[in-house]
Amino acid sequence: MKAEILSIGTELLLGDILNTNAKFLAQELAGAGVEVYHQSVVGDNPGRLREQLERSFARSQLVITTGGLGPTYDDLSKETAAAFFGRKLVEDKEILCWLEERFRAIGCPMTDNNRKQALIPEGAQALANPNGTAPGIWMEDGGRILVLLPGPPREMEPMFQNEVLPRLQQATGKVICSSTIHLFGIGESAVEDRLRPMMVGYQNPTVAPYAKQGEVQLRITAMAESREAARQMIAPVRQEICDSFGQLVYGVDVGSLQNALVQTLLSYGRKVATAESCTGGMVSQRITQIPGSSGVFDCGVCTYANRIKHQLVGVSGEDLERYGAVSEPVALQMARGVRALSGADIGISTTGIAGPDGGSPEKPVGLVYVGVSSEGYEEVLRLNLQGRGTDARDDIRYRASSHALHLALKAARRLGPKEN
Amino acid sequence: MKAEILSIGTELLLGDILNTNAKFLAQELAGAGVEVYHQSVVGDNPGRLREQLERSFARSQLVITTGGLGPTYDDLSKETAAAFFGRKLVEDKEILCWLEERFRAIGCPMTDNNRKQALIPEGAQALANPNGTAPGIWMEDGGRILVLLPGPPREMEPMFQNEVLPRLQQATGKVICSSTIHLFGIGESAVEDRLRPMMVGYQNPTVAPYAKQGEVQLRITAMAESREAARQMIAPVRQEICDSFGQLVYGVDVGSLQNALVQTLLSYGRKVATAESCTGGMVSQRITQIPGSSGVFDCGVCTYANRIKHQLVGVSGEDLERYGAVSEPVALQMARGVRALSGADIGISTTGIAGPDGGSPEKPVGLVYVGVSSEGYEEVLRLNLQGRGTDARDDIRYRASSHALHLALKAARRLGPKEN
Repeated sequence: MKAEILSIGTELLLGDILNTNAKFLAQELAGAGVEVYHQSVVGDNPGRLREQLERSFARSQLVITTGGLGPTYDDLSKETAAAFFGRKLVEDKEILCWLEERFRAIGCPMTDNNRKQALIPEGAQALANPNGTAPGIWMEDGGRILVLLPGPPREMEPMFQNEVLPRLQQATGKVICSSTIHLFGIGESAVEDRLRPMMVGYQNPTVAPYAKQGEVQLRITAMAESREAARQMIAPVRQEICDSFGQLVYGVDVGSLQNALVQTLLSYGRKVATAESCTGGMVSQRITQIPGSSGVFDCGVCTYANRIKHQLVGVSGEDLERYGAVSEPVALQMARGVRALSGADIGISTTGIAGPDGGSPEKPVGLVYVGVSSEGYEEVLRLNLQGRGTDARDDIRYRASSHALHLALKAARRLGPKEN
Repeated sequence: MKAEILSIGTELLLGDILNTNAKFLAQELAGAGVEVYHQSVVGDNPGRLREQLERSFARSQLVITTGGLGPTYDDLSKETAAAFFGRKLVEDKEILCWLEERFRAIGCPMTDNNRKQALIPEGAQALANPNGTAPGIWMEDGGRILVLLPGPPREMEPMFQNEVLPRLQQATGKVICSSTIHLFGIGESAVEDRLRPMMVGYQNPTVAPYAKQGEVQLRITAMAESREAARQMIAPVRQEICDSFGQLVYGVDVGSLQNALVQTLLSYGRKVATAESCTGGMVSQRITQIPGSSGVFDCGVCTYANRIKHQLVGVSGEDLERYGAVSEPVALQMARGVRALSGADIGISTTGIAGPDGGSPEKPVGLVYVGVSSEGYEEVLRLNLQGRGTDARDDIRYRASSHALHLALKAARRLGPKEN
């Protein structure tokens, strides 16, 4: 099936917001085996929207729009779509009841504007929106499918997954499942080189790499008659890839390094503490991003100045003098020191030169030491990080924080569950 | 002038990357007074690219593309654009020399692939790319203007600003200048309500609000014959807005709260220290994002557990027991404690419930206390933050960290320069 993504909103044309919806839908449709060759953006303008619908349906069977479903006068997607297919708008009693209920619950009077949201094109299906007041629309007409979704991502994303994907699967007669393998310590092109021979002839399941700031994720997607059958197709491919990449795999379907770490620590009854210099709190910030992290994290220190490295986590003043703050002994002492200070099982540390200034021939921008200290296992990594993108400083800090999280995860796995 | 933005890249169609280029160009073109009614995305496919160029030039005078300029076989933007205008590709000697120079400098041999990058359509102008190897292209043909830019944002963005904007200004005979007023502590709709009467009849300069996670920026843009004239048109409007919003303005053209804070502290010779609970290091992370922040920040602590709040920054165990960790006295003692510990002029603190769990009727998710302590000025704010978007926990933490940065800025301005 060929599909197009059509984003509606003047705020997109003005560059006020990023089009995260197009990325989300593109990724989901690719995962569902639906081909997308065009994405478009038009403003809240019925004439241009109608033109775009004509053009899109001339090329594709399925068009998914986002935006323009709200209650205000400039939200015209539904009216335009109904007119495009020559349908009237009719009031959907069920949605009206649900809207009235919802407004009663939040104690607001329902205005006429909002009543407009219960209108749907004749013969269309309304898609439930538990996170907002604008329902989505699914319309079929002579083999063409038009899906209208709301603009706010937190309304659109669950609606796509809960309401649209199952209908698409019904329309195509297939179920899609996917599983993600998380790699750390290898670049995207090296992953592709190693995967290519393995993947020759793999059409279903497919394997696609996604690179994200120092990490690579491999998404395995299978299409089958049932969820169970899709899962059974995924399992051997996942096993083959995990065997091939070995230690480079840090988790399967775990979301992120920080989540893998927090879940591992929670399951083992272990705690981690952080002593950060160049990352300035990014490591602790990423750990505490995870709900429930208070069960594994009590204490972090951001020892930016040498004086504080000595005062808070007991780094030797002599070593600071002799080796400098960006050095292996200092990273190790920071990790040990914060572990002792906090009573955690694992201490991790970062010290480096994030730039843009402060580099020298011996210690260039991007040089970072990352340390870990735990019972029976201590290590310091020396990294030469290349900052990428418009903010190289932030990129270096982010990659350094990923290495620290990865070292902590390694230490946690070596320690295993706490004995009581 | 009417323009279209055309993004080229299969990775966009697959949803592998966000289309930040379209947002950047849309915002820049809006600021330059160029109207954009359509944005499109096509893959690295000459046929569909050519079709899209035909469609776009039927509606618009200017088309700006991003992507497909690299040295590899699937980068076909230049070939397709040349064919579209019936031009040959010719080798540009200047670019070839520059490329050879560049490869010599990085010590890599220049492959034939890379030599391809010196080809430009006959009669076109090459646009310098100091951040990469693919030059951009500016082509005019019978009143139509086609601009080809590289895909990586760190190459594309400076090229647009340094090479494309001046040519656009030459083509339109106008110079564009803008200035941004940063507001904190007021919502976007309240800003619009207050601005509307003031803005009636303002066409040049224009004033546009941009909302970003708890902040509002007002961008004033003027178009004139010269930079000086544009600046003179901006000045009185900026003054009027600053007078109207008073204390809600935290800076003009300062980029971000953390940058405003770091620059103020640097100019005053003052230092700040952080004691974070619910923000988990986000405040220190934002401060240390700014190059040069080591001049104003020595020490941060992330006191996630009660025990550590007592141990590191001396919060009274009795008060922790009586009022709980999320309370005014604890926030104040954390700010005082970290100021004393670090010797900084200003201590700031956060303690709250970021959720999704841990809330209660008395202390719901989103309740955050933010504290500040400095010579002669101490304050604790009680916030009820509503988390928005797909990650409400992260949003609450971000907004709390913004309030802490804003309080620190207020304290710094009250203190003024350090007397030696």
